Amino acid sequence: MRPLLYYNLSFTFCLLFCYFYFQYVDSHQEEYVQTLRDWVAVESDSSDVLRRPDCHRMMDMTAEKLQAMGGKVELVDIGVQELPDGKTVALPKVVTAQFGSDPNKQTVCVYGHVDVQPAKLEDGWATEPYNLTDINGHLYGRGASDNKAPVLAWIHTVEAYQALSIDLPVNVKFIIEGMEETGSNGLDAMIVAQKDTFFSDVDYIIISDCGWLSRRPALTYGTRGNCYFFAEVEGPKQDLHSGVYGGTVIEPMTDLIGILDTLISPSGKILIPGIREAVAPLSDEEWKMYQDIEFDIESFKSKIGVSQLMYSNKVDLLAHRWRYPTVTIHGIEGAFSGPGSKTVIPAKVIAKFSIRQVPNMDPAVVKKQVTDYLYSVFAKRKSPNKLKVTMIIGAKPWLADTKHPLYEAGKAAVKRVFDVEPDLIREGGTIPIAKTFEDVTGKSIIMMPIGGFDDGLHSQNEKMSRYNYIEGTKLFIAYLHEVAHLKKD
Amino acid sequence: MRPLLYYNLSFTFCLLFCYFYFQYVDSHQEEYVQTLRDWVAVESDSSDVLRRPDCHRMMDMTAEKLQAMGGKVELVDIGVQELPDGKTVALPKVVTAQFGSDPNKQTVCVYGHVDVQPAKLEDGWATEPYNLTDINGHLYGRGASDNKAPVLAWIHTVEAYQALSIDLPVNVKFIIEGMEETGSNGLDAMIVAQKDTFFSDVDYIIISDCGWLSRRPALTYGTRGNCYFFAEVEGPKQDLHSGVYGGTVIEPMTDLIGILDTLISPSGKILIPGIREAVAPLSDEEWKMYQDIEFDIESFKSKIGVSQLMYSNKVDLLAHRWRYPTVTIHGIEGAFSGPGSKTVIPAKVIAKFSIRQVPNMDPAVVKKQVTDYLYSVFAKRKSPNKLKVTMIIGAKPWLADTKHPLYEAGKAAVKRVFDVEPDLIREGGTIPIAKTFEDVTGKSIIMMPIGGFDDGLHSQNEKMSRYNYIEGTKLFIAYLHEVAHLKKD
Repeated sequence: MRPLLYYNLSFTFCLLFCYFYFQYVDSHQEEYVQTLRDWVAVESDSSDVLRRPDCHRMMDMTAEKLQAMGGKVELVDIGVQELPDGKTVALPKVVTAQFGSDPNKQTVCVYGHVDVQPAKLEDGWATEPYNLTDINGHLYGRGASDNKAPVLAWIHTVEAYQALSIDLPVNVKFIIEGMEETGSNGLDAMIVAQKDTFFSDVDYIIISDCGWLSRRPALTYGTRGNCYFFAEVEGPKQDLHSGVYGGTVIEPMTDLIGILDTLISPSGKILIPGIREAVAPLSDEEWKMYQDIEFDIESFKSKIGVSQLMYSNKVDLLAHRWRYPTVTIHGIEGAFSGPGSKTVIPAKVIAKFSIRQVPNMDPAVVKKQVTDYLYSVFAKRKSPNKLKVTMIIGAKPWLADTKHPLYEAGKAAVKRVFDVEPDLIREGGTIPIAKTFEDVTGKSIIMMPIGGFDDGLHSQNEKMSRYNYIEGTKLFIAYLHEVAHLKKD
Repeated sequence: MRPLLYYNLSFTFCLLFCYFYFQYVDSHQEEYVQTLRDWVAVESDSSDVLRRPDCHRMMDMTAEKLQAMGGKVELVDIGVQELPDGKTVALPKVVTAQFGSDPNKQTVCVYGHVDVQPAKLEDGWATEPYNLTDINGHLYGRGASDNKAPVLAWIHTVEAYQALSIDLPVNVKFIIEGMEETGSNGLDAMIVAQKDTFFSDVDYIIISDCGWLSRRPALTYGTRGNCYFFAEVEGPKQDLHSGVYGGTVIEPMTDLIGILDTLISPSGKILIPGIREAVAPLSDEEWKMYQDIEFDIESFKSKIGVSQLMYSNKVDLLAHRWRYPTVTIHGIEGAFSGPGSKTVIPAKVIAKFSIRQVPNMDPAVVKKQVTDYLYSVFAKRKSPNKLKVTMIIGAKPWLADTKHPLYEAGKAAVKRVFDVEPDLIREGGTIPIAKTFEDVTGKSIIMMPIGGFDDGLHSQNEKMSRYNYIEGTKLFIAYLHEVAHLKKD
């Protein structure tokens, strides 16, 4: 527990603090929204190499913004990405920036990304995905919540201190990448390379690439990892007419469907041997913690529009969302996927599926388990087609200690801005870089989300609410002040 | 058997016939190829409603061509197509044309279509699919073989008689449609409506919408039908992030894969109850006939690029290609189908699969068998997602008597042009209109292919060889002459 004096001083500070900073943020709201609009307008879809010029432009815009604020900015070349056809394409550079270098202050490093998931109007968006559209205070646009607004909120935080001519209470560094949605290709090596330079004076790493669980603000202390697989079945040398050849050819699509159907049972049980056995058991303490979290199953169901979930009680549901693995089949490349009908036997089909990783799973082991299993299942079919299983992403899970001072500071900042205790939650998704930061730098990490629980990340109609964007900026301002009080490691 | 005199007269005729007509055809080869190039340039993909203007233009071009030749041409309005969103779009009009109306002559009606399957360069075409490209005498282009060149070969046939100022030996009618690749939507009703008008004086119907089995010319006496299904599984109201929601949601894609995997076994056995029982047994006579057909399994395998087929002997292979049903899973709409990775749980996925129909299957019964089966398999999964199975095409198989005079005339024409006996073959694909013509008009039908065995219908790099196009035109010229000798029904 903290001494009472700390809270009294903090409370006194808050009165002044709130007045200056929060008023400043409120009065600059429209400017913040306009910047977000400019950023969302850049289709920085890192999964589509044809969009790579937009990704490069997004990194340049980010660097220019930080440069204009007087930061010490670098655009770090992290090499090239190898494409399936053997060609290469340049990776978006990583932006690093530094504001302040006072050795007597704490140094935080804010991580974020400015690349986005794919989005097309015809996927079912109500508005143009790259034209930020304000509907009742919700700002709709691809990447608004994941992760452009949170990155901007951190930038606005530094701007606010600067505008009010008040020294930053901590040194602030930024590391902003453009490949997060596609596995943060190249970033790990860059972090390793700069371990003793850029990261040498960093005390804490802050990540705001996640969201709240409910309307209650939250701090996130764990994420699942992700092993993403391609399973390719190749048969005839080209697509065939299903009338002319159907019945004579062993069809790759039938083989692929057959092996995909052995991954997971209808009740959600992973059928790949060894996966479930590796999962850390659920402790009583954990069970109790889940039990206390504010989470309304009915509103969760209604939000996603389903009548029934995989589990009907809160603990099972949260546990399977955060601390158990799962298999998702995302789709199949190479088969007929358009509207209407086509009488084709696809010659080569590639299933995309992924397995979320949790402690104590190891991606290297999972890769072997999945590959061995699928090859053995496929062998039983006695098909002449060729199966190739590859793991293209292998991201580890991450778990923090919620009693660390960094989290205590987070709780205090949330209390200050929102006047509630935050929920302590985990994230079902993956922020693989958290694990890398931890492993390489050995520094403590906190995840401090400002995105809403209903922001629709990775799906149609992604949005960031004005409320979360603006109050989130205030939270970051308050948090830097809290971190300044922490004892240097 | 025909009287010897017939063959003697025919032989005498051939000497003159060959000289005039065949020389004319040979000397107009470049003109024919240019017309085919103009036709292939129109992207008349009937499956894509956005391409509908091209389909309309293709029908207009066809009508104009026939009109310019002095035919009595009509563009018949066959109504509208209903789209999934409830809107409607005009169907391509059907072109009918008539050359000659001498009641003392036989009247043949040539059926063809000028719409095509989808094609994109990036599907793996070596040349632009809508730019007819001559490589070593092979004319590559979407729709070249299926069915634009055969339709043009029939048009060139009439042109040749006209150019040489020789009366057509039979009256020739044309019925050319623009929706064949999408189930000949609207054509059945049009044929029924014109049964006692356009079709009243038709004696025989000729279809050249198929191909040879080997390098040996062939006559086709049977086709499989096709029941094309959509199986839609709908879950959440929108796509979800697989990290954030994976493990809590019963995923539509998992359900869909699960039910698709129950359609057919790895060894090609259809698992839907009742389907196999409906198939007419293979007779000894049929077995013997298949045994005699020229068919080289090794070259078939090497052509499609597989090391092993579903069956290793000729009779099983031909039988399963022509006279047994099969299931093909064409693809899935709504799932992630692009290159790269996307961590999405698709909210609504629609599988496209089809079952080839053979005697004595009945599409109405098959519809019920498939629907009942899939609903029962799905029910066992106890999924809250919604399954909707619809049959969007229900085309019956067709079978002709190879001893009919129409086929004898065909054999004679093949002998005349190619100096070989044709193979008598069936077609694994579907030309549903054959069954309709038979059922509605009661007239005899012959299928007289000119396309090569390796034309790549419905797949990448479709082509029509110059040889088949030009010699095929000669075959049609010879055939009209043979038909003129048939006794009127």
